[in-house]
Amino acid sequence: MPRPVLTGSEERPSVGAIKNARHPFYEHCEDTLDRIRQQGRYRTFTPLARQAERFPLYEEEYPGLPEGREVIVWSTNDYLGMGVVPEVQDAAIAAIRDHGAGAGGTRNIAGHSPLHARLEAELAALHGKEAGLLFISGYVSNQASLQTILSSMPGWICFSDRLNHASMIAGIKGAKGSSTVIFEHNDLADLEAKLAAAPVDAPKMIAFESVYSMDGDVSDIGAICALARKYGALTYLDEVHAVGLYGQEGGGVSQRDGVADQVDIIEGTLAKGFGVHGGYVTASAEIIDFLRSTASGFIFTTSLPPSVVGAALVSVRKVRAENWRREALFERVATFRQRLRAAGVPFTMTDSHIVPIPVGDAERCKRISRRLLNEFGHYATPINYPTVPEGTERLRLTPGPFHTDEMMDDMVRALATLLRAEGLMPTREVAQQLA
Amino acid sequence: MPRPVLTGSEERPSVGAIKNARHPFYEHCEDTLDRIRQQGRYRTFTPLARQAERFPLYEEEYPGLPEGREVIVWSTNDYLGMGVVPEVQDAAIAAIRDHGAGAGGTRNIAGHSPLHARLEAELAALHGKEAGLLFISGYVSNQASLQTILSSMPGWICFSDRLNHASMIAGIKGAKGSSTVIFEHNDLADLEAKLAAAPVDAPKMIAFESVYSMDGDVSDIGAICALARKYGALTYLDEVHAVGLYGQEGGGVSQRDGVADQVDIIEGTLAKGFGVHGGYVTASAEIIDFLRSTASGFIFTTSLPPSVVGAALVSVRKVRAENWRREALFERVATFRQRLRAAGVPFTMTDSHIVPIPVGDAERCKRISRRLLNEFGHYATPINYPTVPEGTERLRLTPGPFHTDEMMDDMVRALATLLRAEGLMPTREVAQQLA
Ligand SMILES: Cc1ncc(COP(=O)(O)O)c(C=O)c1O
Ligand SMILES: Cc1ncc(COP(=O)(O)O)c(C=O)c1O
Repeated sequence: MPRPVLTGSEERPSVGAIKNARHPFYEHCEDTLDRIRQQGRYRTFTPLARQAERFPLYEEEYPGLPEGREVIVWSTNDYLGMGVVPEVQDAAIAAIRDHGAGAGGTRNIAGHSPLHARLEAELAALHGKEAGLLFISGYVSNQASLQTILSSMPGWICFSDRLNHASMIAGIKGAKGSSTVIFEHNDLADLEAKLAAAPVDAPKMIAFESVYSMDGDVSDIGAICALARKYGALTYLDEVHAVGLYGQEGGGVSQRDGVADQVDIIEGTLAKGFGVHGGYVTASAEIIDFLRSTASGFIFTTSLPPSVVGAALVSVRKVRAENWRREALFERVATFRQRLRAAGVPFTMTDSHIVPIPVGDAERCKRISRRLLNEFGHYATPINYPTVPEGTERLRLTPGPFHTDEMMDDMVRALATLLRAEGLMPTREVAQQLA
Repeated sequence: MPRPVLTGSEERPSVGAIKNARHPFYEHCEDTLDRIRQQGRYRTFTPLARQAERFPLYEEEYPGLPEGREVIVWSTNDYLGMGVVPEVQDAAIAAIRDHGAGAGGTRNIAGHSPLHARLEAELAALHGKEAGLLFISGYVSNQASLQTILSSMPGWICFSDRLNHASMIAGIKGAKGSSTVIFEHNDLADLEAKLAAAPVDAPKMIAFESVYSMDGDVSDIGAICALARKYGALTYLDEVHAVGLYGQEGGGVSQRDGVADQVDIIEGTLAKGFGVHGGYVTASAEIIDFLRSTASGFIFTTSLPPSVVGAALVSVRKVRAENWRREALFERVATFRQRLRAAGVPFTMTDSHIVPIPVGDAERCKRISRRLLNEFGHYATPINYPTVPEGTERLRLTPGPFHTDEMMDDMVRALATLLRAEGLMPTREVAQQLA
């Protein structure tokens, strides 16, 4: 017999009735999950084990195949494949041998190694800033930094791009006492109107990204910084999907555009273009020291394992020095787009390395992804709400230096077949060419 | 010439005056750092590189010594030294070789490997729960889980122990729309009075820890769960400083006390007793699936590197199976306390493995720590505000299975000398015995 359910009912139950009752949160979980399932948004993670030596091949556990089967992955955020570069792996292995598997403490409690300090200096140099600070992820670097800064003085107003990442929103919303003004995505006129309408003497921040990862569009950093100067706002820039990839040394779009010095705080991750793990901010010495000294999400957590830090250090140095990696990436992206175009497969053209294929429906998006995997051995993640707004569901492809021409041809054929089956191919003629 | 400083002044500056002005946040940082320095709370991290093969020896960079010098560390939270157990290191190395240095994506975006699923199942089994969920740290597991749960239904009241960790407080405070009732630390009467005074039909949670890491005291989990049943509250337990160390398999104090099944949600870390990195929660299947499906801090971040997950999996399995590791830890702690007592060095007796040495002043605490390091080659972190309340500054020692009798004697002598110099040794007689 199920235990009695405690509800927020009109009748107040007596203490006796509550005792041993099932907490209403359990029912709330079930209801929420039912709703998510009904909306076609229930997520099942596909277990895929990356094959370091055969990247972008992954191994999928497969019924009846003890070895699993190989799958070509098109959705990794290890954009340059730095995580499988032997020198990066070797650096991680050396650090594990020398220093063990974990850091063993917070930065303040014996978890601060010379490697940590060296990586912070390297990241500061990458962005031309005085100092850098490591966090355990890009998510935490955004959340902790924004929340700490926007709680620091009374009356902060944060001007936040409508499409800012969840981690930035978490930090901005988490800052009690500050207010938020959302400006339309990449809309400079709207941003200026809102800056102009705000009280002149309130401390202001503009928080935005360079490459928006789901749409693949890019912001005009220089123009936003000009507005910031005009209205006295601090600038906070998330370069998570750009670091390693843009700029002469991989310093991001701010480096490519020659405006890094105009940005007060540049945030990035070590988990995408650099292929490892962890996040960071770089800024002036006093801002970094302030965050180091006061940000809860920095202080009260075990620091990154030496292996992660050691691998990231080698990766950042290589990525800074080896421009051919960026060139190889963009050549592959251009080739992939050409082939999609030739086959008539619709995709959204972007100013970045990201290739979204619009689908527009959660169930359909999941179905295409599942059939792509099961029938064709290619994996592309379905991107559904809450990652993107409902109605804009998509596959998000990130071709990289390791995707060969043959893989591309095979993928394009598979996509054409599946999109045709879903009525998403533009014309019958193009589809027939591919059959 | 310094740029003009923009202040929140009475006169509203014109837009012209703001343009190119230095943002007031820079001055705020400087002022805050000055204040921190004046209060003696400015933190400098001591760069220490753990010597995996000689743990608890670390290498300190030292002027004039290119190889650095060796230091004995007494403040690691890798309590059992699992991070330097060869099988754990080997598992990390194998995962780097096989799968690369990072996960390359979020759990939903190709960052979910079979290793992740296996570790979650292992952690659920450890705590006797239906399911487990990995987060990138213990901090994030607390913050994201508590914030998500306490935002889930209207009217949540969270009863939170006064000494709960910063990561729990971040999650509890971050949940908009819920309210918080702080009960006095480990005070069951106060907790019951506050539960009884709350509206009967509001959804309630009691959030608490098992081992409080700064004072080393332990909560009465069974009694708190009995109150939770009586008043219909969900129980959320942080076992971060207990997992691996307490209970027949290292399932924490809740396992030792045979009450794990009474706790709704058990949270832990992989970075302390298990010696690696990352955090987790375990609970019923629906709660875990709810968090998996809705917690921003879980969804929108790169998943833990396969090397971290692989190493943690081996560590958890070993720690569950090998009770002698726990016995060795507690034997060492008992021996260390005996020697401190014999030498008359004051320490706070606790029910856990943690040995606090009270100092009570930030500058003094830092001075003792610095002299311990520079003059005696032992490292113990000074614990100052904001980690502990002002006036309760302390050294926090965590002797472990790798600290030898000789190391202990040497440390006890050093502590006696330094505490005597600070007037913190109880009697002159005891001090003289040591001279
Ligand atoms: C724009 C943006 N910022 C921050 C993050 C978080 O970075 P990390 O994966 O290192 O936590 C992500 C994605 O994960 C992102 O897309
Ligand atoms: C009680 C408590 N909970 C959670 C954490 C965070 O765990 P982690 O270091 O894995 O982030 C800590 C310390 O770091 C802690 O002391």
